Amino acid sequence: MADHKIRVIAIASIKQESREQILPIFKTLVEETRKEEGNISYVLTNDVSDQNTFIFIEEWKSQEDINKHMASAHFVAFQGQIKDHVAAAPQIKFLNQVF
Amino acid sequence: MADHKIRVIAIASIKQESREQILPIFKTLVEETRKEEGNISYVLTNDVSDQNTFIFIEEWKSQEDINKHMASAHFVAFQGQIKDHVAAAPQIKFLNQVF
Repeated sequence: MADHKIRVIAIASIKQESREQILPIFKTLVEETRKEEGNISYVLTNDVSDQNTFIFIEEWKSQEDINKHMASAHFVAFQGQIKDHVAAAPQIKFLNQVF
Repeated sequence: MADHKIRVIAIASIKQESREQILPIFKTLVEETRKEEGNISYVLTNDVSDQNTFIFIEEWKSQEDINKHMASAHFVAFQGQIKDHVAAAPQIKFLNQVF
């Protein structure tokens, strides 16, 4: 039943005052990432109970594709742009499907 | 760009010694939940860096469908079966897509 794609959840806690500035930064990252050959899906969500928590739900063809993504120009640029806006260190969870 | 489905992430931390017992309980929940009319997708994953952390990645047609799910016989039975196996209170995050 399990497929072989790799799923990633990345939880970003953003400073209250940074919310408006961060949205275009997130948007560019999502648009660029979806163009990547190894990406299956890449969705940015917002926690209904905490507007300052953003959660990426990602699906990738392989770990190698994730590594390429994390070394890509747009992801490296994103890391630079976001660092003044985060309220806590992002949590990145690599997940294997069980069922 | 955003669709209107509701996404849920549920994080379950399981006691180390419960891992083998919990898998059939999770399997039944996944199988039954996927039969629900309002469910779009329902995937159980395991955190690669922590084998005792299981994360459900869920997509639902509406909040009403989630409410029906949480009142369903199989979900209520699941809550009873899992309570002796959890190492911490489950975290359930309701998410809206941003991009």
